[in-house]
Formats: sequence, C-alpha cells, structure tokens
Amino acid sequence: MTAPGVVSWALLLEYDGTPFVGWQRQANGLSVQSVLEDACARLNSGAAVSTVAAGRTDAGVHAAGQVALAALPDRYRAEQIRDALNFHMLPHPVAVLRAAPAAPGWNPRFDAVGRAYAYRILNRRARPALDRHRAWHVERPLDADAMAEAASLLLGRHDFTSFRASACQATNPLRTLDRLDVTRHGDMLTVAADARSFLHHQVRNMVGTLKLVGEGRWRPAQVRAALEARDRRAAGPTAPPDGLMLLAVRYPQDPFGGGTSRTEACTPPIPAA
Amino acid sequence: MTAPGVVSWALLLEYDGTPFVGWQRQANGLSVQSVLEDACARLNSGAAVSTVAAGRTDAGVHAAGQVALAALPDRYRAEQIRDALNFHMLPHPVAVLRAAPAAPGWNPRFDAVGRAYAYRILNRRARPALDRHRAWHVERPLDADAMAEAASLLLGRHDFTSFRASACQATNPLRTLDRLDVTRHGDMLTVAADARSFLHHQVRNMVGTLKLVGEGRWRPAQVRAALEARDRRAAGPTAPPDGLMLLAVRYPQDPFGGGTSRTEACTPPIPAA
Repeated sequence: MTAPGVVSWALLLEYDGTPFVGWQRQANGLSVQSVLEDACARLNSGAAVSTVAAGRTDAGVHAAGQVALAALPDRYRAEQIRDALNFHMLPHPVAVLRAAPAAPGWNPRFDAVGRAYAYRILNRRARPALDRHRAWHVERPLDADAMAEAASLLLGRHDFTSFRASACQATNPLRTLDRLDVTRHGDMLTVAADARSFLHHQVRNMVGTLKLVGEGRWRPAQVRAALEARDRRAAGPTAPPDGLMLLAVRYPQDPFGGGTSRTEACTPPIPAA
Repeated sequence: MTAPGVVSWALLLEYDGTPFVGWQRQANGLSVQSVLEDACARLNSGAAVSTVAAGRTDAGVHAAGQVALAALPDRYRAEQIRDALNFHMLPHPVAVLRAAPAAPGWNPRFDAVGRAYAYRILNRRARPALDRHRAWHVERPLDADAMAEAASLLLGRHDFTSFRASACQATNPLRTLDRLDVTRHGDMLTVAADARSFLHHQVRNMVGTLKLVGEGRWRPAQVRAALEARDRRAAGPTAPPDGLMLLAVRYPQDPFGGGTSRTEACTPPIPAA
C-alpha cells in the first residue's frame, strides 16, 4: 500500500559499480542504494526514503538497466523525478534513465520475469587500458568454442548449488537458465546469461568455471559433472566482479511503457517470454 | 637509419585519453608520449628515447589502435618489449598490445594510408554513468538519418578548411574522406570516419556540425555549403574530445603481420585500399 500523497515510482538506473560496495546499503562504504536513497530524501523534505531493486548487484558489478522502486511525494512529474534525482546523485556514477508511476503493489524484484547479464573477459597479454574495471583480464588464450559447448550443458532447469555462493539466501537452489552464450570479438569474450532469476554469484561462478574449459584445464563435460555434484567445491572459482553487468530486467508489462535502456550495442535483446 | 645495436619497433597502443594532455609531450601535464618514452628509457639504460606516433591525438581523445615507433637496444624479443613497457607504464591507462620490428625507414605517421576514428554521442536526457569521458552527452534528440544524409555530402576529395583547426599545421587542406557514417543503437550514436589522413580537429569539427543537423537547426545541404565556404567560421563548433577514439591505422603492409587491435565490437573494419 502506498500512503496518501505519495506515488511509487519505477526507476530505470545505470551505474558504474567500480566505486561502490554494491547495490545494497552497508555501514562500511558507499552503495548505489545509499546514493539513490539520499537523493530521494532530498525530494521528501529530508525524510528517509527506502528503495527496492530488482537485483542486489555486488561490489564492482555494473548496471545498464537496473530497476528500482521508490515512494516519493505526489507533487512531481516523471521528468522532474528523473532530473532531480540525477542532480542530487552528482558526482556519483549513477543515473536515472527513466521514471514511471508503478502499478499498485508492483515490486521490481518479485515481479521480474527475466534478468539479462553480460560478463566480459579481455583475453590478451596486455592489461586493459580502455576496459579497466569493465572486464576480467585473462592472459592465457581461451577457446571460446569449447566454453560455448560447456555453457550449453548448463541450460535448462537445474539445482545450481554448485554455482551458488555459500552466503546465498535463496530457499530453493533450482533455477532455469534460458541462455548462456559465449562469443568472441577480437580479444574480448562476452558471456551472455538470461534467466528468470539467478542465485547469488551464479553468473560469476559459471564464468569462473567456463574459464577452466577455455584454458583447456577442463573438458566441457566436466562442467556438467560439476553441476550434477550439487556441491560448490565441485565447480570453479568465482570470476571477479569487474566483468559483470546487469543489462536489463524484464517484466510481464514493461513498467516504462516500451523502450528500455540502451544495452551493449551487440547484445541481442532478452528473448520474449 | 637505425644505429648499430638498436632495433626500431612498431608498437600498437591502446589508451584512455582522459588523464592525458594528449599524445604529444608537453611541459604542462602528463602525455601518452611521455609515459611511453619514460618506459622506453627504462629499457635503454635510462637514456632518453624519442617516439613518433601515427596520429597526435588531442587531450581527452582515446585510442584502441594507435601506432608508434621507438628505437630500443637490440637485446629484447617482441614479447619482452611489450611486457616490459606495460610494466613500466603502470599505473597509467596505456597498454602496448603488440610490438614488431619495423622495416628500415618505416615511419608510422608518413607511411600510414588509412586512419579510422569513431565518435560516440550519448543522446538522452540523463548524464552518462557508464560512458563518462567516453561519449559526448547531447540531451536534445538527434535525427541520425538527417545526420547521415549530411555526412554523405562530405565524402570524397575536398578542401576541408571549414573543418580545420586554426592551429592546424598541414600545408594542404585537401583531404579525401572515404567514410563518414552515422548510426544509432538505442541512445548511442556513432560517427565512423575513415580517411588517409585528417586535418587537425577535422573529425570533431565535422561531428559538431552534424549535431546541428541532428538537432534540426541546420538542413543537410547547409553542411555542404559550409564545406564549400572554405572558412572555419562557416561550419559548426568543435565537438568535445571525450567521444573521439582512434580505432586503427592502416599501412600498405601491416607492421604487426596480420591481426590488429580489438576495435569497438560493432565497428566494421576499415575498407581495403
């Protein structure tokens, strides 16, 4: 329920995760949520505003299309919400791309039916100059075809315990992986992952495991065996956060009324439900 | 002529131009050239090494495929040159992607037969969070089709005085523009420009003029009229450096023996001569 005089806004957000401890507000550092909530408070006579996001991205993880909900006084138009929040979030690398009134009871996390992530690996000897903090730098040559083959063995509905952080709070480790593509453009590999939802660290743990295949240390079939072990110790290490980007969140009805964020230019759109 | 005991190396470089005063060494700030030359001196018993680049990019302009020449003692292999220079250039956002022995008399600037640049415009109300320092932020909606039409009117061999910086030192203002494409992916516009060589600020001045067309303030034909005026005052303002990237330099024979840098994933390769 939204209180009288208050409007619930759906917000489409872009951020560079590099300087943040992650989405979630924490005592020990700057979070995207705290930057957004502090800006919201400026539109609420200084009173605290709490927000909810579709996905609680980790420290260093980026977003091109995060979606959040914030309740704000009903005296603003959508463009004013967007522009005022952007003004008050300066100089932090967070931007509100769109604001739209949310349907009653709408929740950006629980109503989401699809999440699209991209993970980028810069695969060359020289360190990244242009992609610093935006890709995992892997020096050993990776076999993208072998990684793609291994990735295909993870598609579908499975118990993803082997790819789940020990701190994961989900009650159920079953997830349906709709897409896990590995493509190469020059020395940049992109792993595109789509699912209704992911377990904590699931994308980074899958990528860390696929890298073992790319290096030739694992055969693709070993990734399937790791999945079936339902044991975190059976899979590979967690890939670093720098390469991960939340591209888009999908809902049965687009809260922004069509047209969402710009995502990476070459990333195909999230498949329809 | 290269002195005995010395090898001339062609170097393929990537850099984020944000923290630099530009390619060229200057008294008043950090340049890409000074970072590279200081690293070269470390491989030369501390003695100064001078370098030459294919294009002297301005302050804030980025490169995915700059090419430079440096003469270094003959005791190193190509991989050692690359790795040692990358080590000594830390923590600056410059990386040597490849090193290869240069043919006698080869000059990265005068032997180049093609240069490819991309200029990116983020066209939306919200400021860039992910593309900060990597795109020109233009809030007013731009008509990319009108910009593309105007761009096509600049193709070919012309006197580009109207798009040339007053400080330009070239003796001849004639240039042949082989490509000037304007494309849109979501809210990102990319202007791709290829020529044998460009005048100083030519790409940024063409982009600043095309923006006037995109905003509807100029008709495409006015860009052609500005070209024909051969007067810098007839064309539009200089676009900021942030959006500009030197993608690649082309030579009759690839100094790196095939396979150059990763350029932007969606940018088509430079057309063959």
